[in-house]
Amino acid sequence: MDLSGGFACPLPISEYPRVLLAHGGGGRLSQQLIRSMFLSRFDSALLAPMHDGAVLPVGDQRLAFSTDSYVVHPVFFPGGDIGSLAVHGTVNDLAMCGARPLYLSAGFIIEEGFAMDDLWRIVCSMQAAARTAGVQLVTGDTKVVDRHKGDGIFINTSGVGVIPPGVEIDPRRARPGDRVLLSGSIADHGMAIMSVREGLEFETELRSDTAALNGLVDAMLSAGRQIHVLRDPTRGGVASALNEIADSARVGIRIDEEAIPIADSVKGACEILGLDPLYVANEGKLIAIVGPNDADAILATMQRHPLGRDAVVLGEVTADHPGTVVMKTRIGGSRVVDMLSGEQLPRIC
Amino acid sequence: MDLSGGFACPLPISEYPRVLLAHGGGGRLSQQLIRSMFLSRFDSALLAPMHDGAVLPVGDQRLAFSTDSYVVHPVFFPGGDIGSLAVHGTVNDLAMCGARPLYLSAGFIIEEGFAMDDLWRIVCSMQAAARTAGVQLVTGDTKVVDRHKGDGIFINTSGVGVIPPGVEIDPRRARPGDRVLLSGSIADHGMAIMSVREGLEFETELRSDTAALNGLVDAMLSAGRQIHVLRDPTRGGVASALNEIADSARVGIRIDEEAIPIADSVKGACEILGLDPLYVANEGKLIAIVGPNDADAILATMQRHPLGRDAVVLGEVTADHPGTVVMKTRIGGSRVVDMLSGEQLPRIC
Repeated sequence: MDLSGGFACPLPISEYPRVLLAHGGGGRLSQQLIRSMFLSRFDSALLAPMHDGAVLPVGDQRLAFSTDSYVVHPVFFPGGDIGSLAVHGTVNDLAMCGARPLYLSAGFIIEEGFAMDDLWRIVCSMQAAARTAGVQLVTGDTKVVDRHKGDGIFINTSGVGVIPPGVEIDPRRARPGDRVLLSGSIADHGMAIMSVREGLEFETELRSDTAALNGLVDAMLSAGRQIHVLRDPTRGGVASALNEIADSARVGIRIDEEAIPIADSVKGACEILGLDPLYVANEGKLIAIVGPNDADAILATMQRHPLGRDAVVLGEVTADHPGTVVMKTRIGGSRVVDMLSGEQLPRIC
Repeated sequence: MDLSGGFACPLPISEYPRVLLAHGGGGRLSQQLIRSMFLSRFDSALLAPMHDGAVLPVGDQRLAFSTDSYVVHPVFFPGGDIGSLAVHGTVNDLAMCGARPLYLSAGFIIEEGFAMDDLWRIVCSMQAAARTAGVQLVTGDTKVVDRHKGDGIFINTSGVGVIPPGVEIDPRRARPGDRVLLSGSIADHGMAIMSVREGLEFETELRSDTAALNGLVDAMLSAGRQIHVLRDPTRGGVASALNEIADSARVGIRIDEEAIPIADSVKGACEILGLDPLYVANEGKLIAIVGPNDADAILATMQRHPLGRDAVVLGEVTADHPGTVVMKTRIGGSRVVDMLSGEQLPRIC
């Protein structure tokens, strides 16, 4: 039976006959897979904006709806675990649509033999994270797969939120002259995971920044009307997030290397492992593209919030080089910050 | 760090220190896991009804919200594949809340090395199933895990629907005197999967009944107001679904073995494999508990619908033996139809 209904796959299957780890890495291969395969068949206009979630009309309300599966390895890491990460990640995807997150679902795929007390710790951690974020876990599902057909536990969370009237957050709304704000230090989550995996030891433990950002977004929305884009730079890091925005809005983005906040220990770990921190995942940071008149007020509000204390102006949106992100380097040169091609860090979230 | 916040796990961990396949099988161990672990921590009043989905107030609307992960093996089977199953399953969970399904999310967890053209077939199948069901796939996520850390592909779908005013479907609403209707033959899905796995050959191929039931539910809701409970008897089959309803509503249920529709080939396959068809999964059937005055009209409407042609009155709700399902056997005796304990069929959906 031809399930494809006669449609040829738009992805060059001869080039990639099998799925690679990099197809899930958040970089160029991920984008190619999503665009050519999913967007071509799931042809809903609601999917088109390549947002962190979909914005849906229901009655006279606008709902945000988002989903993410979490396959992070290891499942417990400094600063969090797969359970808190799964709650934060989907709460943040909703918040990046400008929505107030309300309800989450939790779908567990557990490998036979997984320790019951680890499951209990994860469930408790999800509940604590949900309570802190002010969302309710309202529906769930549990599947168990045979030994060696899974990897401990995978968790999907999906979420529903309501977008308040007047809020219009959309990656296509970035415009020349807008400021690019970043809520704090980069690469903390990815390097916390990698340091555990690689057995790296530092004087100060590298901790994930995993956190729910909806409270910070609430504060920002109260501080200024001109928030055009919000994005949490998870898989693929700040570089990939900025490239996606530049591409969606057909604008250029210029950032300043000197402005990027990064902990010394994280920088050191990146150097040891040969990783560029601009491509490393964050799980408690956001990028905001805001109108120039509101930038100061919004930045000050961020800096007063516990999750935005180290917020900075990272750069600005330009009419030049649409679709491209350029960084002014510390030594005064400038270089293109490209989309990540291939896989940098597998199973980071 | 004690993530559990000092709460002791209410599940007897000494008895089950590790997760078993049966904890995902839809029977008694699944229920125990869900009740003691998830319901105790995710203490939302919205979770309590043990429904197929949650019913949520948003503005002046009532939304239904549901999630399911699909881990069926093999991913292609007679009558469907993991993609169509994932769309139908979540559409059906929403329909069983009395909701009109509107939007679905799709979260893919793909094992490295999965064939790209199989993924394409699955994506096309999902899109065709969504179109037929009248729902839109609006948001998604793709993760890739290392070889031997997954099993080809797992798909989570979550869904959102709107419950029309006046519709009140709830497993607690079953009351003595209500009729128990069943929309068609049982055990087709589970035995289609098993026949492929076990390499059984029959004169007529066993085909899954996987289908979206929202159209049938729409028709039923137009035919009579007295629909109290809807349930699709998936994992754990008709027996587990009826036990859950009897337990939720604290009523007895009496069914008539003679009335149960089952294909000869399915019956034969069950006998060969030693399986009781009452516990085998269906993916395109529903049980309806309806008031006695509306039962005839609703049954006639079901029988006019392509997915309810073989609908029958399976039995009735009783005040006797609350919490228990009793079957009048073909030879005139009666036996308790218990909740499935342990695992009958792993990875059936």
